[in-house]
Amino acid sequence: MGEFGLIHHLTDKISLKNSSTIKGVGDDAAILDYGTKQQVVTTDLLVEGIHFNLMYVPLKHLGYKSVMVNLSDVFAMNATPKQVTVSLAISSKFSVEAIDELYEGIYLACEKYGVDLIGGDTTSSLTGLLISVTALGEIEPGKAVMRSGAQVNDLICVSGDLGGAYMGLQLLERENEVFKVNPKEQPQFDGYDYILERQLKPEARGDIVQALKTLGVTPTSMIDISDGLSSELMHICTQSKVGCLVYEEKIPLDYQTKRFADELSINPLVAALNGGEDYELLFTVPIADHDKIKNDPDITIIGHITEAGTGTQLVTGLGSTIELQAQGWNPLKEEQ
Amino acid sequence: MGEFGLIHHLTDKISLKNSSTIKGVGDDAAILDYGTKQQVVTTDLLVEGIHFNLMYVPLKHLGYKSVMVNLSDVFAMNATPKQVTVSLAISSKFSVEAIDELYEGIYLACEKYGVDLIGGDTTSSLTGLLISVTALGEIEPGKAVMRSGAQVNDLICVSGDLGGAYMGLQLLERENEVFKVNPKEQPQFDGYDYILERQLKPEARGDIVQALKTLGVTPTSMIDISDGLSSELMHICTQSKVGCLVYEEKIPLDYQTKRFADELSINPLVAALNGGEDYELLFTVPIADHDKIKNDPDITIIGHITEAGTGTQLVTGLGSTIELQAQGWNPLKEEQ
Repeated sequence: MGEFGLIHHLTDKISLKNSSTIKGVGDDAAILDYGTKQQVVTTDLLVEGIHFNLMYVPLKHLGYKSVMVNLSDVFAMNATPKQVTVSLAISSKFSVEAIDELYEGIYLACEKYGVDLIGGDTTSSLTGLLISVTALGEIEPGKAVMRSGAQVNDLICVSGDLGGAYMGLQLLERENEVFKVNPKEQPQFDGYDYILERQLKPEARGDIVQALKTLGVTPTSMIDISDGLSSELMHICTQSKVGCLVYEEKIPLDYQTKRFADELSINPLVAALNGGEDYELLFTVPIADHDKIKNDPDITIIGHITEAGTGTQLVTGLGSTIELQAQGWNPLKEEQ
Repeated sequence: MGEFGLIHHLTDKISLKNSSTIKGVGDDAAILDYGTKQQVVTTDLLVEGIHFNLMYVPLKHLGYKSVMVNLSDVFAMNATPKQVTVSLAISSKFSVEAIDELYEGIYLACEKYGVDLIGGDTTSSLTGLLISVTALGEIEPGKAVMRSGAQVNDLICVSGDLGGAYMGLQLLERENEVFKVNPKEQPQFDGYDYILERQLKPEARGDIVQALKTLGVTPTSMIDISDGLSSELMHICTQSKVGCLVYEEKIPLDYQTKRFADELSINPLVAALNGGEDYELLFTVPIADHDKIKNDPDITIIGHITEAGTGTQLVTGLGSTIELQAQGWNPLKEEQ
């Protein structure tokens, strides 16, 4: 049934009991009411062998990324991250020095984004490493941006470029295979520093949330791109009860993403649509805000929202229209 | 270095940056400021093979307990739990029906304690089951009770009785060994329903927090007993910079705890001091409140706080005094 199906199955009967719970399961983060302020709450699990491979992921980068993926969800609510808890299950193969390295990355991320580490739990694991992070953010009441607010004719925007994290992963996997065959061979990473960084050290786009505020633009809906553009577009369309039309040629791809995709004979668009882990923001804005955002080099308009029932459509470079599939990065899928 | 040593090593350099972070690492929960209200935040990881054995722990009970251990931390802050997030890493051996059973227990706990499930993350695991729960609670500003407030001459109190959960675990382990040798043998649980329930279905003591409010008693310090009485007493004494004197003969033990300890030729006091998982509350109250609490059948006065430097002392039944050791239940210890 896949991850999304399972979550729906497990949570669709929830009825919220507390007046302080404004929004529960179903967005990038839950929203809690604290009077003059609101809080957003989000949590993510990273599991060795599923989400990361310690053969080539440095522990410091892993610690950094484990915080970042959670901050990305906080920003996707239009909120400001303030605190995180970090829990670890660690197998006996880890030395204190290794755990220190992991925490260096965790603290670096906290430092850079002005976030306090306020708690966690540390236990042993019989097998691999597992990291569970919960992030808490603050927002003014009524200012949270959910997946459900997109309106017909809104412009669809993305920050940065897409597909790079997936291509970085392919590069790391390729070089790891080479290493397994010949451990003396040096990995060939030349010219691919950007896509490696996209995979190993993603940055949550708090700068985009800030830029939109400065531009006087409030997105009508927003989500972070963790599972690939297709999957996130479908979340926004389903929850906003609308359709969308996006243009292949508008989807921002970095030169290295395209070059390495070419090297592997992959269509880089597939990396953008289904690759995941880019941690960019996907959001919609009223068409009236077009002039405010059109000159921001970090924001690309890729399409617009259409009436419900028209589906989530991609206009290809050849002018044909295809229905997008949510083949999002789904760690449960391989096992079912 | 043990769990407590590792946590100290990893967190002792934290300096809190946000004004909303009142208390970070170091108590049962962190405390956040939200103006007219404060929030407490706590998180716990439960790992298969470390914290539970699916040979004899029913999934529904496990779900219930995974929420309960977190609510216990919220109550230990004198707060009211309101929300939880639940993340799961699940190996492919789990059917949807098995996950449903786990969630039945999670929802039962939420229902009983008036808590909303507001989020989580679900992923696959290459090996066993892992459950990460974060609980959020509310409290009026200034009303949180920390580990650090115990004063000389305060009375030391515990709720309920101790050592039962540990003896329940011993019983389950014994019967599991029998089962492994002879799967047709029926487990011998007669007369031990109470200690089994203490292990499999603990209840967080929100009723005690409520009772203290009704009695007009505010504890000066409080902690939940998850790692055994010794360990928790030492946390209170260390953080309050005091010593303590507790009396062996005052420590509340249930009849079944004593009987099964007797059957295994174990001193039941060891189960109470070092067994863990009782999820009772340990707290201190001013001596002036003695009359208010002395008749509550669920509260036992076991000793009093002494000057710093006198240590954490136990007066044995024979009148001798011994220094307590924190041999708390430490899942990291076995591996180091």
